[in-house]
Amino acid sequence: MKAYFLIPALAGLLIALTAGKPEKDAALVKSVFDEVLTDGECYENLRTLCKDIGGRLSGSPQADSAVVWGKNLMESYGFDNVHLMEVTVPVWNRGTKESAAAYLVGKDNEPFKINKLDICALGGSVGTDGLLTGEVIEVTSMDQLATLGKDKVAGKIVFFNRPMEPRFYNTFMAYGGCVVQRSTGAIEGSKYGAKAVIVRSMNLRQDDFPHTGAMRYQDGVEKIPAIAISTNGADSLHAWLNNPDGHPLKVEMELNCQSFPDKKSHNVIGEITGSEFPEEIILVGGHLDSWDNGEGAHDDGAGIVQSIEVLRLIKKLGIKPKRTIRAVLFMNEENGNRGGQTYASKARENGEYHLAAMESDRGGFTPQGFSVDGGDEALEQIRSWKNALKPYGLYLFEKGYGGVDIGPLKDGKVTLIGLVPDSQRYFDHHHSENDVFEAVNKRELELGAGAMTSLVLLIDEYGLVPE
Amino acid sequence: MKAYFLIPALAGLLIALTAGKPEKDAALVKSVFDEVLTDGECYENLRTLCKDIGGRLSGSPQADSAVVWGKNLMESYGFDNVHLMEVTVPVWNRGTKESAAAYLVGKDNEPFKINKLDICALGGSVGTDGLLTGEVIEVTSMDQLATLGKDKVAGKIVFFNRPMEPRFYNTFMAYGGCVVQRSTGAIEGSKYGAKAVIVRSMNLRQDDFPHTGAMRYQDGVEKIPAIAISTNGADSLHAWLNNPDGHPLKVEMELNCQSFPDKKSHNVIGEITGSEFPEEIILVGGHLDSWDNGEGAHDDGAGIVQSIEVLRLIKKLGIKPKRTIRAVLFMNEENGNRGGQTYASKARENGEYHLAAMESDRGGFTPQGFSVDGGDEALEQIRSWKNALKPYGLYLFEKGYGGVDIGPLKDGKVTLIGLVPDSQRYFDHHHSENDVFEAVNKRELELGAGAMTSLVLLIDEYGLVPE
Repeated sequence: MKAYFLIPALAGLLIALTAGKPEKDAALVKSVFDEVLTDGECYENLRTLCKDIGGRLSGSPQADSAVVWGKNLMESYGFDNVHLMEVTVPVWNRGTKESAAAYLVGKDNEPFKINKLDICALGGSVGTDGLLTGEVIEVTSMDQLATLGKDKVAGKIVFFNRPMEPRFYNTFMAYGGCVVQRSTGAIEGSKYGAKAVIVRSMNLRQDDFPHTGAMRYQDGVEKIPAIAISTNGADSLHAWLNNPDGHPLKVEMELNCQSFPDKKSHNVIGEITGSEFPEEIILVGGHLDSWDNGEGAHDDGAGIVQSIEVLRLIKKLGIKPKRTIRAVLFMNEENGNRGGQTYASKARENGEYHLAAMESDRGGFTPQGFSVDGGDEALEQIRSWKNALKPYGLYLFEKGYGGVDIGPLKDGKVTLIGLVPDSQRYFDHHHSENDVFEAVNKRELELGAGAMTSLVLLIDEYGLVPE
Repeated sequence: MKAYFLIPALAGLLIALTAGKPEKDAALVKSVFDEVLTDGECYENLRTLCKDIGGRLSGSPQADSAVVWGKNLMESYGFDNVHLMEVTVPVWNRGTKESAAAYLVGKDNEPFKINKLDICALGGSVGTDGLLTGEVIEVTSMDQLATLGKDKVAGKIVFFNRPMEPRFYNTFMAYGGCVVQRSTGAIEGSKYGAKAVIVRSMNLRQDDFPHTGAMRYQDGVEKIPAIAISTNGADSLHAWLNNPDGHPLKVEMELNCQSFPDKKSHNVIGEITGSEFPEEIILVGGHLDSWDNGEGAHDDGAGIVQSIEVLRLIKKLGIKPKRTIRAVLFMNEENGNRGGQTYASKARENGEYHLAAMESDRGGFTPQGFSVDGGDEALEQIRSWKNALKPYGLYLFEKGYGGVDIGPLKDGKVTLIGLVPDSQRYFDHHHSENDVFEAVNKRELELGAGAMTSLVLLIDEYGLVPE
């Protein structure tokens, strides 16, 4: 019998029945947080992932090591059914050369005011094939680029310099308003004949770290190199471009990054088999791959160790969940989402039923709540547990995005849930060499695991109204 | 006419009248946060306070500089009635010698396994008058000390090693459960004949920073030296004490810290005079003094720059408050609270009426809400504004503590309010050399100022039911 089957008209009744038993729920949540704040293992697990392995871009030897690490760790905790799921991933390598310098051009064509730039290649970029030099033209929107047109853009290097909007409390909103420069800047620039693009880093803070991230090319549009520049570097470039004497600004850059044929990699999966409804799966996950320049601590080492911790905590507390609680360490979120796609398609092939899927991929910061991509009833049901969760700072239960890796599971039934931590510091670290273990606070990280575990156990206890 | 006068029976009606106009309130709050997240000046002001002045213990030249800095800054912003209020403060100086080492004593009385310890004198401690050496005895409570009694304790160094309780979400609760070791450890140890005390740092994190803080002596009880040891150091000391061969553990220490006669210092005050009810004061404040070992960034540079920012924002937004909004930079919170006491006694002398007093002294972290030390009606009124505040992460409106500096204002009428930021990282930095500007995130800091300003403006707009 599938417990999730219900007649829609009964949904209201079910919510009433599943709204929880306040004292029991509060005690359950307290037991989870007591354990994770006292003996949580997220932080030390993150240390080994970051320090013994480090950045782990899909297809890299480090990503292979991370797969082994994840499998070994889940086995050491005695999870059920620990296994690898094959995933074919794209391979891109930053190469050995990555530099750029800017200079003003004098009246006798001499370069002056030369400055090295804090840059890195965007993920997926082609190399420069030797030294590439071009005059820089700055834009802050695709519309502005179109207005300038081929006449002004051809042969130049386009500098996309729209900063993130600081007024959003949720910094992911600010990211959403800028990331198009990074993801499609090279396509749009190339359409107008640009020879390369420079993109202002997606960072709300002023600093010297360039932030990489995925960029795309388009069939039929020439592939041109794409680099990120730090926020301080972007402001300097802007100031130089506006030099009072109107000297042209040139940048010369050299990259030998390149793409290679696809490779075999893996999602890593482990679970606690449900005691009553083993065929109902509550998934928790994050992504095991990361960008190569940092250690992938917040993005998404945090989500990985938290997802594993959910299962470890449940076992440690001696809880036998009714439903199957499954941790999935997805491969290749950063530049392809092949892990998420492969997982969802296999789940469909195998007729698996996911009651809920929860992702942590917004950093290991103090959790504030959850964003819920599901039906109104499911959201109301989750909100009905809010009094048990509020003592641990969880107050935000809103309709919203679940996560990239779990996204392909969306089927009109599963409730997708994203852990929402405080986002103020996330983009200080995201995709940069600054995303290191030292930037993670133990308590903040462990609280995230406590939040995930608490909600998973409440869903396990009461079920969840399907969308 | 005093707007705050009302007949108790009308209080319910007043709440209804002052519950706010949701759309207008939301727009007001948004305008505050838009401004502070875009052009907030907290962070750059904190940089100058931390980097140009640094740690500023009462009576130090740095504290004098901080008074000048505060006054100049408020004048530069054009605040009304900027002035100094004289405060007599205690003077204690860490001196030039501050070291300790531990060693096990061998069977021929030879010292071995010698290790230097990460220590610092507690604030107010006497020096050691040369080298002080003694065998160490560990306790985790005052009861345990009493049970050991004079026989076991006399002539020894008492090591207070109760760690902070990690299970509290609010880390100030954990602090409250341990700080007695620091504040009265030297008194209690001395009563049983101890020659010095070592106190485990009030820090939830394992690291090598010793954390100072105020300690007391008691008339008639001999003053003995008191030092803090880092959490890692405390764990080492504990392990050594339990060495399998039962070797005694000795510590030798040298301190030349000392107290000096009281000195003249100042609270710094500035305001925006109210346009309708200038005699009704809404106070915002923090403390200008800090411990000497760090830069006093979170404790309490953050509260200082946020309090100034409240007034700057109001002026910048062109708002003419009805009531007087007053910023007070209190002197001497850390080791005497003379600034808070002097301020309150002068306010009483002058017949000043404080409608509300708000303090920020829990670090420059992402704000979560406010703790309210006032009447139930005032709390309900503040809660009635929650929908305007929630988009900025402010969800916590609970009865609770206001703050040390504003505490002496309590008179049965004024509502005392404490800004409540996320507390997870606070004690990583508190009172240690680790409390530096770099540990503060700009957005988190500015959000705190936005929270304070928003609540101040709502109180200004609608008044607040007295206790």
